[in-house]
Amino acid sequence: MIKKSTLKIGDTASIKNVISSKMIDDFAIISNDNNPIHLDEEYASKTIFKKRIAHGLLVSSFISATIGQSLPGFGSIYLSQSLKFLAPVFINDEITTLIEVLAFPRVGRVLLKTECLNQDNKIVIKGEALVIPPKDTELII
Amino acid sequence: MIKKSTLKIGDTASIKNVISSKMIDDFAIISNDNNPIHLDEEYASKTIFKKRIAHGLLVSSFISATIGQSLPGFGSIYLSQSLKFLAPVFINDEITTLIEVLAFPRVGRVLLKTECLNQDNKIVIKGEALVIPPKDTELII
Repeated sequence: MIKKSTLKIGDTASIKNVISSKMIDDFAIISNDNNPIHLDEEYASKTIFKKRIAHGLLVSSFISATIGQSLPGFGSIYLSQSLKFLAPVFINDEITTLIEVLAFPRVGRVLLKTECLNQDNKIVIKGEALVIPPKDTELII
Repeated sequence: MIKKSTLKIGDTASIKNVISSKMIDDFAIISNDNNPIHLDEEYASKTIFKKRIAHGLLVSSFISATIGQSLPGFGSIYLSQSLKFLAPVFINDEITTLIEVLAFPRVGRVLLKTECLNQDNKIVIKGEALVIPPKDTELII
């Protein structure tokens, strides 16, 4: 974990997560998204994906976790997030979530580049987040 | 559930979910987002929110569930989602997720308005989603 009291453009952080079958099953219960493309191996085998895929917002949750725990870190307030779902994520995929400080678009606001990549270095989700950093954070222009 | 084989601008669907403590605990495990604002009542009582809040992407997951199961429904492919987190969501909040067809921006693409409201009719999350509807869906212009 990186815990910063200063923040400048270009700062980065990353976290890795491995997708498990249990994660997908549990996410289906929470979200009530029981689409068989996520839950049923036989059904999924007949789709273009061939295998069960993780819910897009399950993988996206690693972004908010990285923001809240790493960059800008603990105490950040999440204002917005854009997400493009570029490629499917499968069970046992190792997802690297990358956060980079892009800009300070307004006083006390931080714009972040947010990406999730799989073990083949393919971007599976990309987007941007706007956050209020923790109170004690100095933004260095 | 609404299951349509035709889709036109202005079509709507909605789903209700009640936020539980267990949902938040389980989402923290999946996402590895263990920020005490979500998990620790005593910590949360000292923040501006006063109470534990749900993860923004937990509440957002109701949007993708509504898209996949109701409008455009089963077999939709999720291309993108924008999310603005406008107000906190607490345990026992009853969240209504509303989806509305806004436009067909390209052949075979559907742009949706996506909103989550709490029991006081306050918008807590708003944004837009772009999806490919199920194969058998006729888009009526």
